[in-house]
Amino acid sequence: MMIKPSIPKGTRDFGPAVVKKRQYIFQTIRETFELFGFQPLETPSMENLSTLTGKYGEEGDKLIFKILDNGDILGRAQQAKDSRELATLLCEKALRYDLTIPFARYVVMNQHELALPFKRYQMQPVWRADKPQKGRYREFYQCDADVVGSNSLLNEVELLLIYDRVFSKLGMQGYEVRVNNRKILSGLAELIGKPELLTDITISIDKLDKIGLQGVQQELLDRGLSQQDVDIVNSFLQIQGNNQEKLQQLQVLLQSSPVAQKGIEELSYVLNSGLANFNSPPIVDVTLARGLNYYTGMIVEAKGPASVKMGSIGGGGRYDDLTGLFGLPGLSGVGISFGVDRIYDVLEELQLFPATAQQSTKILFLNMGEASMPVAFKHVMQLREQGISAELYHEPAKMDKQMKYADKRGIPYVVIIGESELQENNVSAKNLQTGQQDKVAMDDLLGYFYCLVS
Amino acid sequence: MMIKPSIPKGTRDFGPAVVKKRQYIFQTIRETFELFGFQPLETPSMENLSTLTGKYGEEGDKLIFKILDNGDILGRAQQAKDSRELATLLCEKALRYDLTIPFARYVVMNQHELALPFKRYQMQPVWRADKPQKGRYREFYQCDADVVGSNSLLNEVELLLIYDRVFSKLGMQGYEVRVNNRKILSGLAELIGKPELLTDITISIDKLDKIGLQGVQQELLDRGLSQQDVDIVNSFLQIQGNNQEKLQQLQVLLQSSPVAQKGIEELSYVLNSGLANFNSPPIVDVTLARGLNYYTGMIVEAKGPASVKMGSIGGGGRYDDLTGLFGLPGLSGVGISFGVDRIYDVLEELQLFPATAQQSTKILFLNMGEASMPVAFKHVMQLREQGISAELYHEPAKMDKQMKYADKRGIPYVVIIGESELQENNVSAKNLQTGQQDKVAMDDLLGYFYCLVS
Repeated sequence: MMIKPSIPKGTRDFGPAVVKKRQYIFQTIRETFELFGFQPLETPSMENLSTLTGKYGEEGDKLIFKILDNGDILGRAQQAKDSRELATLLCEKALRYDLTIPFARYVVMNQHELALPFKRYQMQPVWRADKPQKGRYREFYQCDADVVGSNSLLNEVELLLIYDRVFSKLGMQGYEVRVNNRKILSGLAELIGKPELLTDITISIDKLDKIGLQGVQQELLDRGLSQQDVDIVNSFLQIQGNNQEKLQQLQVLLQSSPVAQKGIEELSYVLNSGLANFNSPPIVDVTLARGLNYYTGMIVEAKGPASVKMGSIGGGGRYDDLTGLFGLPGLSGVGISFGVDRIYDVLEELQLFPATAQQSTKILFLNMGEASMPVAFKHVMQLREQGISAELYHEPAKMDKQMKYADKRGIPYVVIIGESELQENNVSAKNLQTGQQDKVAMDDLLGYFYCLVS
Repeated sequence: MMIKPSIPKGTRDFGPAVVKKRQYIFQTIRETFELFGFQPLETPSMENLSTLTGKYGEEGDKLIFKILDNGDILGRAQQAKDSRELATLLCEKALRYDLTIPFARYVVMNQHELALPFKRYQMQPVWRADKPQKGRYREFYQCDADVVGSNSLLNEVELLLIYDRVFSKLGMQGYEVRVNNRKILSGLAELIGKPELLTDITISIDKLDKIGLQGVQQELLDRGLSQQDVDIVNSFLQIQGNNQEKLQQLQVLLQSSPVAQKGIEELSYVLNSGLANFNSPPIVDVTLARGLNYYTGMIVEAKGPASVKMGSIGGGGRYDDLTGLFGLPGLSGVGISFGVDRIYDVLEELQLFPATAQQSTKILFLNMGEASMPVAFKHVMQLREQGISAELYHEPAKMDKQMKYADKRGIPYVVIIGESELQENNVSAKNLQTGQQDKVAMDDLLGYFYCLVS
């Protein structure tokens, strides 16, 4: 019996219309990365399991997709005492879980050939065995740019400019790029006198959007802060005003912490370097924490327009010593990533995809039979040579069947070369949206369409 | 202890220079596919194991990479009697083995929405647990274009034109596209009176390049043909001349076979339709067999220039009933594929990659310290806005360190804005290949570089 075909849960087919729109997003990001001097890297889908294990926390380890070794595995399986050990015995390889660890692994493996700083971008799928749900997939693209081997804050400025350019190019008015500095949060923990609770404080603050100020305060108490500590965090979180005002208040509140002062200084440079002209200047957000522990300097998060409830569409920050995991300590890095699936949803909801990202073939020549086919095809090939995508319908079917094909494909123009057109040496060109129909001399066809569709 | 990081055997990292060149190949193919009205499709890396099993023969089944189910697998493992059963018990999913089966699966799943004929292209990696060796990888890209749902030979003509355009655009002089028709081979088996041996005959002829005419004859005898049969095959294989002459000889030799006559007629139409102007016309090759059994009409193979010993750089053909595997019979299809890895090797060996496919950043502004940074960066951003990739070195390091970076990155121009340049309101622009150095007024910088690098 034939089973109805399906795809694994949490995965997606991308049909032509969706691929075209996704390509438009990728292309906008890629072009920007390259203008800023970032270079493409592609790593294998499979990594050695040992490269990935232990890099994403205990929860992360469970979500790594492992690849079964080929060949004789039965004997090995029989030695396992639990499922976890079984997986390790049967699998040498696993699917990429993110782009950061493979990047670090690549840098270490190629450290002697690379020109540092190494500015790389990478756009590839990653796989996670998360429970699939709305907006969360088991296969999805990540889209990262990182600079490794440079402490210069120029990199921070450039990465913020990349966000600014990409979101502007995508026409996403109202996007926000929010920045903070991890050293400021460290300073806060210092001020309280509990630097060992930095992670707890960070994790709690990170939930502000979800659980509100009350919730954060309660969680901080639960995590071992005194009421007095919580009051300090509270006054920190309530810092307001424009960027300059916020930086000044931070300076006052955290004046006793040298590390915080360093963080404020870095943040201030990034925002006021005099280098950058932002379309939409980054906003200081002291409540921005970002859960990941490895950040040590600037942290950044990008949000779509407020009219679309979408949350973060990108994020990043500076980290130290990423390559130390693989035996190459002392390289600082800073990077950002784009959330392509969410950016897609924002553009879709606000109808911001340009027409060019939604069309493929521009002109369909109807197939009017043997006599006109060579003439029609000659024009099709001429249009293609000029970079205009054109097709001749594959067979001399009934007119309405051919028109239906044009419609279903979203082809904006059809051209008819029938007997009368052949005799008069012209063609009928029809705009399917407006219904307008023109007679065009055959010799003028290229010029006619060149202006309309390129 | 830190283990030296590595990647799984048979997989590859693609560093920036290689990715850029690969993108150039992909982009050339993609552009051509789209000009001809083909639409992009992307399917998930993972398919249900049941979708793939049994589609690639017994050998193929063994080469499918299976993905271990997450969660509790120990209990299931204990029921297995052999390694094969164990794999089936532990794995629901597997990695894509080719692009054809996922395409067929997609067509069946979306049959009610698709506009037929469906012209799709797909460029994605596939995975095979082959023994890695020179030129054979466990992860590699396939690059396919297929038309499904049309019997029109116009599709054959267009696919041959796609080969012609892509190889021409890539500058690959001396490429050859060879065509045959599976019906002609069927006719040959008919003529011999042993249609049941078609597969044996095809497989043997397919080895002509490797084992020579003598070898093929011996193998045919071993496979059950009489000496008389072999003589007929022999006279078939020795058909020579130009396309027209070959077609005429085929007509005579196979006149008693209606199916062969149909094949000759199809081949003749494809070559002489009057529709196509080839840069390098396809060549009839009666010895072209292609091992795969599912071809039923035209078969085609593309070869690189004879000066490069590379063998096939592409192939394809017409097949019937691909979607029948998933319960949708009666759809005919025809397709071609490009061997991107081999095309890469050909272009590399013949030094055919254009300079633009090998550069990233065009201009490096040296970092001459605080005072000149804002001026330099302003120009960097102006160049970027004009689509010219430029960078400011990340810190005011020693000149030779900065020059070394430019050199290692293959950046063709550096710009210096030092104290004297700031005073004189100009810049020094240096071509690193020729050594030529120009003084350029700051206001003219954009114009100066616009001609040089775009």
